[in-house]
Amino acid sequence: MKVTPITSPNNALLKQIRGLHQRSLREKSGLFLIEGPKAIGEAFDKNVRVRDLVVSETFWKEEAAVIADRDVPTISVVADKLLKELATTTTPSGIIATAEVPHHELDELFSGQPPLVVIVHAIQDPGNLGTLFRTALAASASGVILTHGTVDAYNPKVVRAAMGALFGMPVITDMPFEKACDTVRQRGLRVIGCEPTATLSLFDTDLTGPVAIVLGNEGQGFTAADLEHVDEQIAIPMNPKSESLNVAISGAVVLFNVVQQRLKSKSI
Amino acid sequence: MKVTPITSPNNALLKQIRGLHQRSLREKSGLFLIEGPKAIGEAFDKNVRVRDLVVSETFWKEEAAVIADRDVPTISVVADKLLKELATTTTPSGIIATAEVPHHELDELFSGQPPLVVIVHAIQDPGNLGTLFRTALAASASGVILTHGTVDAYNPKVVRAAMGALFGMPVITDMPFEKACDTVRQRGLRVIGCEPTATLSLFDTDLTGPVAIVLGNEGQGFTAADLEHVDEQIAIPMNPKSESLNVAISGAVVLFNVVQQRLKSKSI
Repeated sequence: MKVTPITSPNNALLKQIRGLHQRSLREKSGLFLIEGPKAIGEAFDKNVRVRDLVVSETFWKEEAAVIADRDVPTISVVADKLLKELATTTTPSGIIATAEVPHHELDELFSGQPPLVVIVHAIQDPGNLGTLFRTALAASASGVILTHGTVDAYNPKVVRAAMGALFGMPVITDMPFEKACDTVRQRGLRVIGCEPTATLSLFDTDLTGPVAIVLGNEGQGFTAADLEHVDEQIAIPMNPKSESLNVAISGAVVLFNVVQQRLKSKSI
Repeated sequence: MKVTPITSPNNALLKQIRGLHQRSLREKSGLFLIEGPKAIGEAFDKNVRVRDLVVSETFWKEEAAVIADRDVPTISVVADKLLKELATTTTPSGIIATAEVPHHELDELFSGQPPLVVIVHAIQDPGNLGTLFRTALAASASGVILTHGTVDAYNPKVVRAAMGALFGMPVITDMPFEKACDTVRQRGLRVIGCEPTATLSLFDTDLTGPVAIVLGNEGQGFTAADLEHVDEQIAIPMNPKSESLNVAISGAVVLFNVVQQRLKSKSI
């Protein structure tokens, strides 16, 4: 492992990292940023291809042990102040990696027994999407499809909120909504939209078979045109005094209901 | 209703609003901030005592209709730029209210049939707490207790994430953890800690009776000493590849399992 100090803010790698704060440059380069030792460790563990590691001088002195046995050709060490300018958090951890956006084939989505796919439609908040990744992995989802118009899965805030879960399952991005629904339906999954106005309760819906759970935009939910592409609509019964649930919360309630139903059906 | 223009940044009301960004001054004055027409509307609807309304010139010209029929003695109109400095969001909505922190009696917590109390222990992230309020209201919780060491319920970020839910149910703040557990136990509630290492599954636990659901700190969870004060520990069964769930997500999965169990027990 080669250790290189970088002192110039105009260094090409540092410029690249600053560029990767932007979606357009992530898409152009096929690279994204991972910040913090824990998320970077997860990336290594899940065979995400890490390209470059940049650490602050303090991190290098005090915490370098956590990356010592990782397979990375070069580590660049920069002044703490310089690292702070590269980070997307206000309290940077002292380590940033560039990595290749993982490529997944559609087939990988259907490996579950039975498959449980999450279709995320036009969700805008990075924290919500990251939390959904974390929840989907915990609920043993077989994969996630992000429709066109959804926040970038490799946005640094999403990566941070996902806490490594983004690397633990196949994620397909930027698919038109109709195509996403059709694709999973062709594989034998029922396409189930979570829609607060639905008359069918989550608690009365059998989710033990192959299903895709579709979650809509935070503010707008689904359009009438969207709903033509789903097979069933379900709602989470809730207090009429309450206006709505956060989309990551709704997703969690539905996904863990699937977990519960599947555990029960196995134990019977 | 009196309409007063304010032009000086040193105006006493504006100084007070800036002060209310801080917990210490909220606690001293018994006041807090509500931002945005929707949350302020919810506060009026739930009889939160709104003291002062400050709006931007643009809001006053274009959106004043939404507050026209509200019972508020004075509205202060300030330059857009001045309002921006008062707001705690980077994209302020143009309207800020000061309001009295609602006072709730312990007795109000036990009104549910049967009661469902949420004890929030040492949660630090304002977004998590606000989301928990929203979720607790949606799950018909009879009330929420925040233990000592939890982020302030009236922190502007909490108020924002709660989207009005903070005003829809009794909230008791700053209670020592042991006292919170003892208090609900004395009222006949089982005290159930959500603890990822527990051997008992949420899905095998009867939650149809009077219960308090206890949620721990994001990073540390519960200490061994904390766990001595709970009656039972339950875990949400999850994918072993997943490290953990966000605390607001765990809370939602448990609370909506209570909803499900209670709906089923009624229908049988």
